[in-house]
Amino acid sequence: MGEESSLLKESTSINDTNMVEEVEERDPESNPLNEPLLKRNRTLSSNPLALVGAKVSYIESLDYEINENDLFKQDWRSRSRTQVLQYIFWKWTLAFLVGLLTGVIATLINLAVENIAGYKFLAVVNFIQKERYLRGFLYFTGINFLLTFVASILCVCFAPTAAGPGIPEIKAYLNGVDTPNMYGATTLFVKIIGSIGAVSAGLDLGKEGPLVHIGSCIASLLGQGGPDNYRIKWRWLRYFNNDRDRRDLITCGASSGAPVGGVLFALEEVATWWRSALLWRTFFSTAVVVVVLRASIELCHKGKCGLFGEGGLIMYDVSDVTVRYNVMDIIPVVIIGVLGGVLGSLYNYLLHKVLRVYNLINQKGKMYKLLLSLSVAIFTSACQYGLPFLAKCTPCDPSLSDVCPTNGRSGNFKQFNCPKGYYNDLATLLLTTNDDAVRNIFSTNTPLEYQPSSIIIFFALYCILGLITFGIAVPSGLFLPIILMGSGYGRLLGILMGPHTNIDQGLFAVLGAASLMAGSMRMTVSLCVIFLELTNNLLLLPITMIVLLIAKTVGDSFNPSIYEIILHLKGLPFMDANPEPWMRNLTVGELVDVKPAVVSFKGVEKVANIVNALKNTTHNGFPVMDCGLVPTTGVANEATELHGIILRAHLIQVLKKKWFLKERRRTEEWEVREKFTWVELAEREGNIEDVAVTKEEMEMFVDLHPLTNTTPFTVLESMSVAKAMVLFRQVGLRHMLVVPKYQASGVSPVIGILTRQDLLAYNILTVFPHLAKSKRK
Amino acid sequence: MGEESSLLKESTSINDTNMVEEVEERDPESNPLNEPLLKRNRTLSSNPLALVGAKVSYIESLDYEINENDLFKQDWRSRSRTQVLQYIFWKWTLAFLVGLLTGVIATLINLAVENIAGYKFLAVVNFIQKERYLRGFLYFTGINFLLTFVASILCVCFAPTAAGPGIPEIKAYLNGVDTPNMYGATTLFVKIIGSIGAVSAGLDLGKEGPLVHIGSCIASLLGQGGPDNYRIKWRWLRYFNNDRDRRDLITCGASSGAPVGGVLFALEEVATWWRSALLWRTFFSTAVVVVVLRASIELCHKGKCGLFGEGGLIMYDVSDVTVRYNVMDIIPVVIIGVLGGVLGSLYNYLLHKVLRVYNLINQKGKMYKLLLSLSVAIFTSACQYGLPFLAKCTPCDPSLSDVCPTNGRSGNFKQFNCPKGYYNDLATLLLTTNDDAVRNIFSTNTPLEYQPSSIIIFFALYCILGLITFGIAVPSGLFLPIILMGSGYGRLLGILMGPHTNIDQGLFAVLGAASLMAGSMRMTVSLCVIFLELTNNLLLLPITMIVLLIAKTVGDSFNPSIYEIILHLKGLPFMDANPEPWMRNLTVGELVDVKPAVVSFKGVEKVANIVNALKNTTHNGFPVMDCGLVPTTGVANEATELHGIILRAHLIQVLKKKWFLKERRRTEEWEVREKFTWVELAEREGNIEDVAVTKEEMEMFVDLHPLTNTTPFTVLESMSVAKAMVLFRQVGLRHMLVVPKYQASGVSPVIGILTRQDLLAYNILTVFPHLAKSKRK
Repeated sequence: MGEESSLLKESTSINDTNMVEEVEERDPESNPLNEPLLKRNRTLSSNPLALVGAKVSYIESLDYEINENDLFKQDWRSRSRTQVLQYIFWKWTLAFLVGLLTGVIATLINLAVENIAGYKFLAVVNFIQKERYLRGFLYFTGINFLLTFVASILCVCFAPTAAGPGIPEIKAYLNGVDTPNMYGATTLFVKIIGSIGAVSAGLDLGKEGPLVHIGSCIASLLGQGGPDNYRIKWRWLRYFNNDRDRRDLITCGASSGAPVGGVLFALEEVATWWRSALLWRTFFSTAVVVVVLRASIELCHKGKCGLFGEGGLIMYDVSDVTVRYNVMDIIPVVIIGVLGGVLGSLYNYLLHKVLRVYNLINQKGKMYKLLLSLSVAIFTSACQYGLPFLAKCTPCDPSLSDVCPTNGRSGNFKQFNCPKGYYNDLATLLLTTNDDAVRNIFSTNTPLEYQPSSIIIFFALYCILGLITFGIAVPSGLFLPIILMGSGYGRLLGILMGPHTNIDQGLFAVLGAASLMAGSMRMTVSLCVIFLELTNNLLLLPITMIVLLIAKTVGDSFNPSIYEIILHLKGLPFMDANPEPWMRNLTVGELVDVKPAVVSFKGVEKVANIVNALKNTTHNGFPVMDCGLVPTTGVANEATELHGIILRAHLIQVLKKKWFLKERRRTEEWEVREKFTWVELAEREGNIEDVAVTKEEMEMFVDLHPLTNTTPFTVLESMSVAKAMVLFRQVGLRHMLVVPKYQASGVSPVIGILTRQDLLAYNILTVFPHLAKSKRK
Repeated sequence: MGEESSLLKESTSINDTNMVEEVEERDPESNPLNEPLLKRNRTLSSNPLALVGAKVSYIESLDYEINENDLFKQDWRSRSRTQVLQYIFWKWTLAFLVGLLTGVIATLINLAVENIAGYKFLAVVNFIQKERYLRGFLYFTGINFLLTFVASILCVCFAPTAAGPGIPEIKAYLNGVDTPNMYGATTLFVKIIGSIGAVSAGLDLGKEGPLVHIGSCIASLLGQGGPDNYRIKWRWLRYFNNDRDRRDLITCGASSGAPVGGVLFALEEVATWWRSALLWRTFFSTAVVVVVLRASIELCHKGKCGLFGEGGLIMYDVSDVTVRYNVMDIIPVVIIGVLGGVLGSLYNYLLHKVLRVYNLINQKGKMYKLLLSLSVAIFTSACQYGLPFLAKCTPCDPSLSDVCPTNGRSGNFKQFNCPKGYYNDLATLLLTTNDDAVRNIFSTNTPLEYQPSSIIIFFALYCILGLITFGIAVPSGLFLPIILMGSGYGRLLGILMGPHTNIDQGLFAVLGAASLMAGSMRMTVSLCVIFLELTNNLLLLPITMIVLLIAKTVGDSFNPSIYEIILHLKGLPFMDANPEPWMRNLTVGELVDVKPAVVSFKGVEKVANIVNALKNTTHNGFPVMDCGLVPTTGVANEATELHGIILRAHLIQVLKKKWFLKERRRTEEWEVREKFTWVELAEREGNIEDVAVTKEEMEMFVDLHPLTNTTPFTVLESMSVAKAMVLFRQVGLRHMLVVPKYQASGVSPVIGILTRQDLLAYNILTVFPHLAKSKRK
């Protein structure tokens, strides 16, 4: 085996590996997911030259295609009608429960945030009214420091994956890349508490992204019957113990987390695969969430839930604005769109840089992570409290019906340090919850409410906060920071354009927010629906669409969307929807040529060979081939038959259960059925290192036929990479076999196996750099 | 060639053929699409035993995958950046134009219908007020007869494809089956005028389905630069001369035609393939339509457009109803759902029977078609006018704020033959436009408006009309008839349940309509959005969803959806989203075994062989193979190389242009580039019968390499049919090559070609009837 095993060692980097748990045991900090923002894998797994000492992505790919082996077929044939109905019933029940629980948790988060932040602001206002400014500052900063501390310490110590929005990881999961520790009970708990803490602390982040993650966690936990160590092992739950059903559930969860335009958000941004049956189930979950949220608002009406009820969900209403725009108003609309595109891509660029720096800090240890969060919290509090003192007091406009000045928790004209009859416009924007700040800056028919200088300060502050807050170790959403920034320059533009346009300043703020969202996130349809729901005015639709379209187009010409940048930073092998143009000039045959030779098994294989292959490679799939004559046709030549592909996980099961044969023979169906059930084979646990095989057993045989997936997807070696990628993504593959275009004896029926990593544009370009040049040309 | 050509003749039925135009020339009446409701093709194309004298589907499949041959690659490499930008610009402009024109035409149709029907009813009311009932009847029936005559004669004589809703054919088109004469200028014109005539004539049909077809026609005409004989041949338009771009445009058109929930309708019901880029373009088109419609309503405000403006688009508002339901109200909701499912599937069943009978009548000739339409029109008019005389006059309720009684065109309390202060409730429902009838039966807070007997008459009449009207030769939508029927039993249930529930009768009518829609059409999400928009009340969402879900589930347990039934009746080879369970037990190898042998070409082939193959088969794709040694590996054995697949259309181009070689050699790239352009190859025109080849030329050669698609999709013979079908549908294939799982000299590298027809469940079951048994078990 000398020669062979060294050959096998060379191929250790073939992408999807099984080493996750191992790595984690060694040191949780070195886990790629505890350091989420480092670009880890610059090596192309398919390039043998670049392999020495290379790090590979330790993340295993998911298997969305049905693994059609004898056992599966047998199990599938024996499923009764009752079991099928049971399965359908539970599928819908789970979708309902996902919606219900997500709705309840969303309500709880809103309730907690509104109350904590509300009482905090009431106390601060109290200090200010008594002109005890320093004490007010200390109180304000102290509370915020404490809240951030709670959120951050939980994230740092218990669930590093709970930091950030979680949306990129969910996107990757639905694309076929499983990030470990992403959907556990601890993560869920930390995400909920952390989100409450961070949002109440007034940090420049939203609770929308985390809610999507929370929905997905709930879906995953429900599907597997509870937390890892306390799973309910009901029989029917086992039907959901496979990648396909879990993917569908998590899609439901993700759209439940974004109830406003949730289905479209999931469809446009998050999900890779989509079926119309899933559309309906997702819609059902989302509707349940909406009903729960509405019901909670009804229940909490008139102060039954503390300070909750006045604020609540983000739902701004500009339906009372008389929308009257003429043809010339297209000019400010186009300007906003272009600005949104430019600023959005600039934001993406700068955030990328900041995240790289943060990553270096975070790498140094838990203490540094915590300190970083706390510094950002103190800076935020200081600015929010201190900057309003710079603003001049503005006299109240008696012609407006709104209360002015206000001292309560929410309200459009905050008195702050001003005398009676005057308000501080900067305090209105800064010394309030983020939701209320958005509501205030979106306020319509108040053209003189804000001084340009205040808006400039607001915009500048939130640009800085938007860049420095996102990367800290607390759950954070990107929606709200971007809306705040965007509404800032939108309103500013509104003030500047005021004499020349009919469009209201509040509408300018809304359009600014929309343009920056489109310029940074590059979503369009779901944003359009979200802003349609916010503005509640169908006549605004055309201008919103123009703004979004321009901003997205301008942004796309500079850099990719923020989610793609984060995915790239995390080194997640995400497969794009559209192949690169140069992929048409490359065949899969050329791609396979630069990969190490395939490791394959015979139909009835020696145990020793299997153990060696598993120990010396990290492949997760091995082709199974038989030799002999072609049985059906009369050809007398020697022939090789491609029987199928077998998974590492199944081989390990065989070794663990010691399903060995004394002689080289094929088994009967009942033999394998006695030993394995289909449900067991759906498990992915097990490691070759844990398997002990004696010397005698090494000389025995295993019949791989019944466990082999006999229907792998294949492509000819002359297939272009572009088309292969479309197939890979559309059907949801994990392994794609490359077969020769030549038909002759002595040619192997499989000349290579392609996986997700091999088809990633970045990886291909490291081996074929000349393609990058043709790309530029 | 004796032996071979007879063998080739046997294989003439391999599905997608090129014979459409030929057939049409012979006799337009024998065209499958002029007799839309006959189940034509009961023969499995892949069964050689069933072939003798068998009819096959003359409809050609579409090619959504990119045909990657040398010419395409060359053309594609040479496209400049400007050309790419030009293409994107025109793509969006076309999407805009599709929306704009569809919106304008929808407005025109509404305007015409409201005015024609309005003045008709005013005149009739005039007669009735003067108690000249017979003259009123003759006038009413005469006008309706005339309108139906115009609509029907146009459909019968000029555009038979304009009859019916058109949605099934669009669904089939987007699935990959091109129905001829479906998207022409004549069809568009007839559809518009016919729709106006039929709807104004008070027939029991809607304008929603036809509008979807109109949108698609506009999209198709714009994409190809105008009607067939007057096409604009602009250079950029040629970019859209391919199946992919045409499909995308028609998707935009189809969703523009259904602006209420259009994108979701297209997504759920109509489209087979979907990309997120298309989502946004479709949304854009739909938004343009909505803006145009809204603007037209604004413009027509206060009688500027005749009688238009009071009625208009279907938009009922039940937002003023206090929705208060408790847990026990779940019982009527469940009853409505179950009833909707049962009645919906019963309707599907009966309509199927009626359509079969109609088909026999329609087959007899144009005169019979016309007579059928006119009889239905007379019957409808007689019932609408005569039945209200059966109803007792009801005294007006002075506590209601509505005008009572009314004599105008619309209004909830029609006086008809009653004395002052009384109204005729059946006239309110029958002697009005369908839109107003729906509005009246949906009316809320009027629990005593209708007598149960009137509602029963209404329901019974519309059940009969709904069954007999759909199949006649006029453009007809299914939405409105089903809504009318459903609201009938909904309201009736409301009256019966009145004392036991809090739900308003109008709401019962809405829920009844929703349940019958779901029970018959089996759509869910788009219906939910449509009814959400109709009811404008988010709190109704949960009960609407429960009703839809139950009705769909109950309906599905009886028969397929109405669209599927019509697709099946028309014999369109539609490919379902989900493979049948028994397809997992069948391999593509077994499927290929019952098909005739593959006809293949050598890389450089004799002209005579090509002409013979084209004349004697109806295949549209032929594999191209080379013989020789394997060049890369050191294997010395004889080898066959699979070069790719060549299309019939391209072979005909070669023959027409006489691109022949004197000797057997391979050509240089410039030689083919001189003769062909990629744009020419995108054309599908040409027939082998039109090609004249001399005897000398027959002995010459053609180099097929540059025109061969070198990247065909392949599956192993051991692949299950279920998985092959997923691949076929997901990637949008036309031909799928089956390759052997054995690797040996002498084995052909292609053992069969599968097309759409071979993968249809129905066709497979005729050859493998035992699978049907396993299915039942």
